[in-house]
Amino acid sequence: MAGGLGCVVVLSAMLLGTAGAEQRYLWTDEEGMPHFTKDAPGKSISYQMVTVPDGIDWRRRPAMSPEVPAERKLSSQELFKQVSGSVVWVESETKDWAAGKSTSYGSAVAISDDLALTNCHVLGSGQGTLRVGADKENSTEDVELAAADFDADRCVLHVKGLKLQPVRGIRLINNLDVGETVYAIGNPRGLRRTISQGLVSGVRDLADARFVQATAAISPGSSGGGLFDTRGNLVGITAFTLAESQQLNFAVPAEDFWK
Amino acid sequence: MAGGLGCVVVLSAMLLGTAGAEQRYLWTDEEGMPHFTKDAPGKSISYQMVTVPDGIDWRRRPAMSPEVPAERKLSSQELFKQVSGSVVWVESETKDWAAGKSTSYGSAVAISDDLALTNCHVLGSGQGTLRVGADKENSTEDVELAAADFDADRCVLHVKGLKLQPVRGIRLINNLDVGETVYAIGNPRGLRRTISQGLVSGVRDLADARFVQATAAISPGSSGGGLFDTRGNLVGITAFTLAESQQLNFAVPAEDFWK
Amino acid sequence: MAGGLGCVVVLSAMLLGTAGAEQRYLWTDEEGMPHFTKDAPGKSISYQMVTVPDGIDWRRRPAMSPEVPAERKLSSQELFKQVSGSVVWVESETKDWAAGKSTSYGSAVAISDDLALTNCHVLGSGQGTLRVGADKENSTEDVELAAADFDADRCVLHVKGLKLQPVRGIRLINNLDVGETVYAIGNPRGLRRTISQGLVSGVRDLADARFVQATAAISPGSSGGGLFDTRGNLVGITAFTLAESQQLNFAVPAEDFWK
Repeated sequence: MAGGLGCVVVLSAMLLGTAGAEQRYLWTDEEGMPHFTKDAPGKSISYQMVTVPDGIDWRRRPAMSPEVPAERKLSSQELFKQVSGSVVWVESETKDWAAGKSTSYGSAVAISDDLALTNCHVLGSGQGTLRVGADKENSTEDVELAAADFDADRCVLHVKGLKLQPVRGIRLINNLDVGETVYAIGNPRGLRRTISQGLVSGVRDLADARFVQATAAISPGSSGGGLFDTRGNLVGITAFTLAESQQLNFAVPAEDFWK
Repeated sequence: MAGGLGCVVVLSAMLLGTAGAEQRYLWTDEEGMPHFTKDAPGKSISYQMVTVPDGIDWRRRPAMSPEVPAERKLSSQELFKQVSGSVVWVESETKDWAAGKSTSYGSAVAISDDLALTNCHVLGSGQGTLRVGADKENSTEDVELAAADFDADRCVLHVKGLKLQPVRGIRLINNLDVGETVYAIGNPRGLRRTISQGLVSGVRDLADARFVQATAAISPGSSGGGLFDTRGNLVGITAFTLAESQQLNFAVPAEDFWK
Repeated sequence: MAGGLGCVVVLSAMLLGTAGAEQRYLWTDEEGMPHFTKDAPGKSISYQMVTVPDGIDWRRRPAMSPEVPAERKLSSQELFKQVSGSVVWVESETKDWAAGKSTSYGSAVAISDDLALTNCHVLGSGQGTLRVGADKENSTEDVELAAADFDADRCVLHVKGLKLQPVRGIRLINNLDVGETVYAIGNPRGLRRTISQGLVSGVRDLADARFVQATAAISPGSSGGGLFDTRGNLVGITAFTLAESQQLNFAVPAEDFWK
């Protein structure tokens, strides 16, 4: 993959047959939620310029794996053994005239042997190199953006350089019970496949999108990681946390990536 | 209810036959604990002036619901279904000459069809409008202060405009086991009926009062919400958290509202 | 114990037959991890000078209690009853020319009736008084440093003035499952024997040492406390947490104190 994410983004936008690419401002509001806007945020807010293709589409739309049924509940150890292999490492290296080279870490979750869901804000400016893999050592740069809806922070990566381990099933949001146990697995602060446990607190409408709220601990670097139910179904992609709060954490519903 | 909480406080103070009302300083110490003091706090600490009636009393003292017995343990989903309806939304709008209108959110827990326990510091300055309900849309301004002990941060609301769903039982503090599982349900950051799980760490004497310490996550707006045991009994009213710490959270014992 | 920790450190260094004592800089990096270095940290970082004996050794090496087997799982209440008595209070009073007297609180875990494991950074500068006990009221100053490896933050206290309650067993790190439930018990913010629950996220190599990563909540003052598995085995000594994160917490493996 020559030229890094920037080229990939433009290329995939063309492959998708969309009208083209545009520049967006990526920034985080005071509550902690990321936004991609066409206009610059307020003066005191720092932002990043991002190259964004229009619309969302899949070059190769995978089937949505059916939900693993309720009776097949796993212990927290079994769950980690069975699903953590689907959570991959995402490293985005950005070259900047002023600040030099900066590397950010995030997560993604495999839904087939070559497609992985993540949050778009994990991918950085689109001006550097993107690496995906089990960890830093076992990773590939042969990655393209397969689909993207930046407004909803839903991005799909096509990982060609590695064979991924897909999740067991996708949980439908209408079946979700408030109070049920969930697990977050991601790479917070670069700590590979960190697992935490919590409860679902509901599905919330925030900024024109719906999110699963849960208390399972996440931290910077968990973005793009998986929120799983006790059967190992993927519930959502852990996206952000409210600032100055205790585990008011939010995930983009996995199901919504097939919208 | 014309005139908002300020009038109510004075009115209920008269109804209670107490000597009158006084002004107190409401502020939070560096650890995060709220205080209502007669003297101003130190220079660098921001505070709010609050109209406070003397003493604590009930205009209509409800029976204290007996504890649901130990064998009737609920799953976290069942618990949410059975008790979350007792946790109500409290919105306090304050008009201020300097700062204009500000709205703060909190929680309260119903113990009968028209009485709800909360923390006094949720009620704001007593100079604006108070709304109570299931959420912002389904709420009433027909609310009065039924009883108050500001020193202990225990306030009881008489909600006349709505029929409340009382909790199933009140847990006696002497029966509480350190290490047992508890759930917090409240409206942190305005997120209606958010549930979290944790363990009881003990009953602590702090600043001349006793509090239940537990690790169930709470955040600003959880104040006045409920801490429940695994049978759905109300253990306490979630009141504050220690600053710069991980879930060192404290609740006013529910039982102490009947002192 | 006349003269406090400073004298003890020198004395025990001599008793251990090591080459002597040296001065180290104790400071915390931007991630939150404590270090004892021979050179001063960067200009903007505050530090404490600490008297450090060379090497690690035991004056009286206790047997390592075998692991309690997997089938003897305890509830969180039973666990607290059985193991919390092994977690002791550590108070270190430091006299400083400039700042006057300052007291810091921490934790330690008994592994025999007179030896307790802790983190070296809990012990302070070695220039004041050290007290160990069930709490502030039931404590002794008759304490010596029995062994120390400051680079690995592993210190062992010989508590002569009190009879300690040893832990039931020591968990071997190779047997640890990612995703298994663990409990932290310590004295965060001086709150005696606070218990929290979480999951193991793995064993990590950080700064030339291995640590158990877990989500059980810890806070300042938890340092030196115990991380226990569901059978009551001591897994590790809770040492530090990553800054600006949700429960990315680390413990020194208990087993490594016998290295």
